[in-house]
Amino acid sequence: MTLETTVAAIRPADEPAMAAARELQARLTKPAGSLGDLEPLSVRLAGLFGACPPPLPEPAAVAVFAGDHGVHAQRVSPWPQEVTAQMVANFLAGGAVVNAFARQSGAAVTVVDVGVATPLPAGSGLISANVRRGTRDMTVEPALTRDEARAAVEAGIRVAERLVADGAKCLLTGDMGIANTTPAATLIAAFTEASPEAVTGRGTGIDNAMYDHKVEVVAAVLEKHEPDPADPLGVLATVGGLEHAALAGFILGAAAQRVPVIIDGVIAASAALAAAAFAPDAVAAMVAGHRSAEPGASVALAHLGLSPLLDLGMRLGEGSGAVLALPVVAAAVRVLHEVATFDSAGVSEK
Amino acid sequence: MTLETTVAAIRPADEPAMAAARELQARLTKPAGSLGDLEPLSVRLAGLFGACPPPLPEPAAVAVFAGDHGVHAQRVSPWPQEVTAQMVANFLAGGAVVNAFARQSGAAVTVVDVGVATPLPAGSGLISANVRRGTRDMTVEPALTRDEARAAVEAGIRVAERLVADGAKCLLTGDMGIANTTPAATLIAAFTEASPEAVTGRGTGIDNAMYDHKVEVVAAVLEKHEPDPADPLGVLATVGGLEHAALAGFILGAAAQRVPVIIDGVIAASAALAAAAFAPDAVAAMVAGHRSAEPGASVALAHLGLSPLLDLGMRLGEGSGAVLALPVVAAAVRVLHEVATFDSAGVSEK
Repeated sequence: MTLETTVAAIRPADEPAMAAARELQARLTKPAGSLGDLEPLSVRLAGLFGACPPPLPEPAAVAVFAGDHGVHAQRVSPWPQEVTAQMVANFLAGGAVVNAFARQSGAAVTVVDVGVATPLPAGSGLISANVRRGTRDMTVEPALTRDEARAAVEAGIRVAERLVADGAKCLLTGDMGIANTTPAATLIAAFTEASPEAVTGRGTGIDNAMYDHKVEVVAAVLEKHEPDPADPLGVLATVGGLEHAALAGFILGAAAQRVPVIIDGVIAASAALAAAAFAPDAVAAMVAGHRSAEPGASVALAHLGLSPLLDLGMRLGEGSGAVLALPVVAAAVRVLHEVATFDSAGVSEK
Repeated sequence: MTLETTVAAIRPADEPAMAAARELQARLTKPAGSLGDLEPLSVRLAGLFGACPPPLPEPAAVAVFAGDHGVHAQRVSPWPQEVTAQMVANFLAGGAVVNAFARQSGAAVTVVDVGVATPLPAGSGLISANVRRGTRDMTVEPALTRDEARAAVEAGIRVAERLVADGAKCLLTGDMGIANTTPAATLIAAFTEASPEAVTGRGTGIDNAMYDHKVEVVAAVLEKHEPDPADPLGVLATVGGLEHAALAGFILGAAAQRVPVIIDGVIAASAALAAAAFAPDAVAAMVAGHRSAEPGASVALAHLGLSPLLDLGMRLGEGSGAVLALPVVAAAVRVLHEVATFDSAGVSEK
């Protein structure tokens, strides 16, 4: 589907299904509220699916969108740009953290080249959807044209459609792109109006001098382009990245199909803001997997009204935090499917 | 083994294994520190096992120790005492939350009757190790004799030995016992010297009047028995419970066998304090699964120097929080087994 038809397909959460989930939770053999955050999560997922119980999030599929960034030339990362392509090869070989986590939880990993700077050999598990070999340097000019941003968004929508058509009952966001926390910070500032200092983090681990410079780059880009949060495609084009745009589409595609999408870290959170700007009801499909150590992620999740499930100080990306949260999401739903009621188990109530 | 031989078998963490784990973490294809709390956890588990990498925590086994409490007569819980036995039947039938979570993560559930008030039919998965049909009312007299407390501790040790002999590479604590948060609060106050108000929670959900009364009961029991934290068996006997004592033994048994034990909620945390009082090096085997909503759990974990992995506002017990944390523990270890190094994957370093 196109961006517009996808946005039009996104519906609000189903209130009767949520009421049914609340009523079922009250009859299960446990004290009311004793499962903490898992209970409202199960209610949200029932509302998304439109019935209680919603399906278990199995099988799950993580899509790792990879792209490069013209702003890398401004020395906002200590890592060479070629690491993006090298890590794509690592994902395809199964050697990265996201692969190990996904094997453990039974999630499939799909890698999508939406904007890597160097040509990649076609390989098992790689979807080639390269819109452009890296963005332009947004300190000089818009990172992307509107058409390029749209192409990346629609590539993400298509990946979500393909994975759901292949049977996925839960989608997970992943990303790879050296320097991609800089456009993520800029996007978050643009959508939330938070300050550059509040949204900029140390990414893969940078020193104080590079951090101060990165904040200045984010501030300068915002001043130069004055992105308008009411025009999410324009924001993604001027100050975004190809994987950010594709992830926004991926999230919209999940929401349009009423499939939950677990948001990983700061890159995915910035894309989630774009998705919510396109379609506010898309938030009903989002589950915040974890609280990234990147400060912008917390700013974005708060803006979206989402509470993260895990808080382990992780800041790797790749989808690692989303995959680690998958068992928690599955457990929340499984309770509705498998736990006995007071009545059925013959357990007295208080 | 006896309590004394078990305590004598517990060794400090192995420093060379921890150094090896730190060195391996630095070579894996991810920015240093980007896995947050998972990295020091992997180091701790290498230290416990004595080599790097330590084994994956698979298969895992959760033992749910069930007992009843004389202090229930003081109306510290709104639930009838018979619910303990009814929930044991629910565990054996596979209908409780811990069963659902354990099925998801591949953990086996063993139920141990260490002190249920009513006779239970012997059944599949039930270990009968009943020391006494519920404790005495500790507001009137010591809950247990020292011999009864020792018998419960040693029952817990034997369960840990049996599960490890059957192949378990990770043990998880579970508990069931109506009114058992009252002795847990009292134990935590006794071992940490925190106030009754700081360690007493609402358990399964009690109103303000019952909560105030529960705090008074905890305070009165502490004043009556003046438990000495240097005498952990005496503390368990006077103000503890049979499942609390058995869990202390279970934790000691895990530590003696150098197998990690995931601590669930406030009952397990109170037992962990007793285990640490018997053998301070037992803390090396403990992994705090989650931060229970019960305030005493946080007091106990802080006293032990443990940071919980999950913080989801749960307060169910049964081992549910420990089982939910198992995939995080497994992921932390799996990284050491499966993630490629910069060298092996041909990824450039910064």
